[in-house]
Amino acid sequence: MNELFIEAKYIISGSKCNRIIKNGGILIENDEIVAIGKVEPVKSLVSGHDKLDRTNHIVIPSLVNSHTHIPETLLRGICDDEKLMTWLNDYIWPFERRMTSEDAYYGTLLGCLELIESGVSGFIDQYFYAESIKKAAKEAKIRALICPSVFDNTPESGSLENTWKHVSSLLNNSIPDTNQLVNYGIGPHAPYTVPEEYLYKVKELAAKNSLSIHIHLNETKSEVEQSLKDFGMSPIEYIHKLGLTEEKILAAHCVNTQNKDWKIMKESNITVLHNPQSNLKMTSGIAPIYKYLELGINVAVGTDGNASNNDLGMIEELSTAAMLQKHLSQNPKVLDNSQALRLGTINGMKALGVQSQGITEKSKADLTILSLEKSHSWPQNNIVSNIIYSSSSSDVSDLIINGKLVYFNKEHQTLNKEKIIEKCSTISERIITEMGKIKK
Amino acid sequence: MNELFIEAKYIISGSKCNRIIKNGGILIENDEIVAIGKVEPVKSLVSGHDKLDRTNHIVIPSLVNSHTHIPETLLRGICDDEKLMTWLNDYIWPFERRMTSEDAYYGTLLGCLELIESGVSGFIDQYFYAESIKKAAKEAKIRALICPSVFDNTPESGSLENTWKHVSSLLNNSIPDTNQLVNYGIGPHAPYTVPEEYLYKVKELAAKNSLSIHIHLNETKSEVEQSLKDFGMSPIEYIHKLGLTEEKILAAHCVNTQNKDWKIMKESNITVLHNPQSNLKMTSGIAPIYKYLELGINVAVGTDGNASNNDLGMIEELSTAAMLQKHLSQNPKVLDNSQALRLGTINGMKALGVQSQGITEKSKADLTILSLEKSHSWPQNNIVSNIIYSSSSSDVSDLIINGKLVYFNKEHQTLNKEKIIEKCSTISERIITEMGKIKK
Repeated sequence: MNELFIEAKYIISGSKCNRIIKNGGILIENDEIVAIGKVEPVKSLVSGHDKLDRTNHIVIPSLVNSHTHIPETLLRGICDDEKLMTWLNDYIWPFERRMTSEDAYYGTLLGCLELIESGVSGFIDQYFYAESIKKAAKEAKIRALICPSVFDNTPESGSLENTWKHVSSLLNNSIPDTNQLVNYGIGPHAPYTVPEEYLYKVKELAAKNSLSIHIHLNETKSEVEQSLKDFGMSPIEYIHKLGLTEEKILAAHCVNTQNKDWKIMKESNITVLHNPQSNLKMTSGIAPIYKYLELGINVAVGTDGNASNNDLGMIEELSTAAMLQKHLSQNPKVLDNSQALRLGTINGMKALGVQSQGITEKSKADLTILSLEKSHSWPQNNIVSNIIYSSSSSDVSDLIINGKLVYFNKEHQTLNKEKIIEKCSTISERIITEMGKIKK
Repeated sequence: MNELFIEAKYIISGSKCNRIIKNGGILIENDEIVAIGKVEPVKSLVSGHDKLDRTNHIVIPSLVNSHTHIPETLLRGICDDEKLMTWLNDYIWPFERRMTSEDAYYGTLLGCLELIESGVSGFIDQYFYAESIKKAAKEAKIRALICPSVFDNTPESGSLENTWKHVSSLLNNSIPDTNQLVNYGIGPHAPYTVPEEYLYKVKELAAKNSLSIHIHLNETKSEVEQSLKDFGMSPIEYIHKLGLTEEKILAAHCVNTQNKDWKIMKESNITVLHNPQSNLKMTSGIAPIYKYLELGINVAVGTDGNASNNDLGMIEELSTAAMLQKHLSQNPKVLDNSQALRLGTINGMKALGVQSQGITEKSKADLTILSLEKSHSWPQNNIVSNIIYSSSSSDVSDLIINGKLVYFNKEHQTLNKEKIIEKCSTISERIITEMGKIKK
């Protein structure tokens, strides 16, 4: 049995992230939290010697990045400040067409480095090269729900037909196992890019193997307008009509929605994956998250890929989410600090398929530890407020995933950072050279 | 003569922050940059031995926080998620009423620690206890334009009449000296809180002593509506009518403005101090910065005070500013990376009253050095994009203000961090106890 005892200045516990234990202790056995409370009573249960002294730190439930395209780390910064079609046609797609499965593997490793440094213990992905992503995530010992893209003209398989052959054969025997850190879902890109015939195939495969369906829905206004023209209904209504909402839907964006959509989202138990920074930067809008929360719709938070955001850090994303909802609703009370933290942690875990009630007994031992060394963490009048509004991803000192320390004293325990960074720089340079032009 | 030579992987130079020198060198003599370029030619000019090896770093012009209320560090986190009047009446004002000049001194020192750690070499302030703020800023060796608040019922002087006596006596012999790091301006709180009679006095004193007038203008919709009712014109039109715009106006917020205001802002050479995060969080709105820039109006960026934001870091503020303007204008091309950086650096220096063209020969040696150690800084496809969208305030490794290293290898060179943090925690606890209640 592996035992780890953590002593911390503050622990944010409870399924609502609003129970603060000062001078607290956490006891982990194997992959599970077995005791939590004031330091002394928990300490009395400790039999081993593995102790982490974090008395100038805060322990929070681990963050989850619930929507990204992780090999896009390689595309970081290749294009900002451009209209969508220029961005796609002149930069993103030409880059992706030149990406190999090995490139995607290294790009994922770089993404895992960044996620780990940001205190993120799991991510939900939609991209090509699912096997490369899986290999990298397993090496990083990070949680991942990898949803291979169903999309036409992918760099991996070419046509939609070939992509489907590849994806369906990959997923045919892939029933998610909650005891594994890494699992597959399925990633039909969006209703406007995947024809009806294939959406039915997706639904059938998802039903057969209990796969989560990770799909972009109602991201832009023009996409919704096109859907109304083509199908007489919004993308959300459309996938509902096709029966996809009988499965577990992880719906990225949901920016441009209306009453009719909300009813479906609520009744079908859809989880919204909210990406506030990407939505601003790509001029998609601000998703009405406060309404979703009012209605009891599930919401988790992600960053989107590095080509559009351009980082994978979640604390800044939660801060942006909270501020934007106050602005949108004209009500400062919405999305309070604890709720924002919950969206980025416990709700993300749920979307990943992990049953966790945050830092509570019998929950999985996924813990993010923030150092209080920066001046922005003082004074500590309100700990959760400081986390959301003052701290940064860079305050993360340690990360425990499923009971294992993958980041310790700001040092990676699972990955060779220097090698990965060097490799990824070379890959990006190679592809940009091949493209023959790049906005500097 | 003091000489310092810096070798860096990248230097962001030029008055537009868009000239990137790879493997560059900077030579500083006393308080001035005397040479900049590729490393070898600059190195050949070096006579001394003081060399800073920053070959895994980026050097940018120093950031400026152009609007804050610095002793509010003590109020960090005491209230979020509340309506404005509850926030003010139940939390902010009761706290401030109990703040002493010594408290403000320590609160400012904590603010200086945070600014320095965030690579910020100067700030523009409006608060009471100007002498405490000045004393602290001088100890920190940071640039500051301190604008004592003209406001009724201050904790320092009580009535507006007494406040004016104090402020005017303080400023009577205070002509700004650009060779000093710390100077005074004057801070009439806002047209809705300062009666006409005192606005005239402010104007007179500012004219006499060449003081910048630092004022809140057109922050909220209700303030503008009230001004239309009371004066038949907007706050900006009103101060223009009173003649204040003949002086140098530093106008915080300018969120709710119209054509008529823009004309005045342009013609009177008003500088807008934009605080995007505070404006979202306080539900004031999004200032139309892209319009101001189109019209050639000066814009600098600030964080506002810690009671409303809740941190003083500028990189995140610039990222928020850029994203919000794309959203507001529905045009991703507005406020591009270099322009965002310029607003937070060169434009801020100008607002402070320092003539600087960024990292160019003969400019003041105010330099912020960012480490590339975090994975979010890789690959380096676009350096300025990485600074604005991927990096964080915590990447700052060193800060040079006016030729002096005030932060070196993430260690403070001017302030005793441990003592200040301890003192400020005690002060906040004392005041909160006196208040008898606090939202946790």
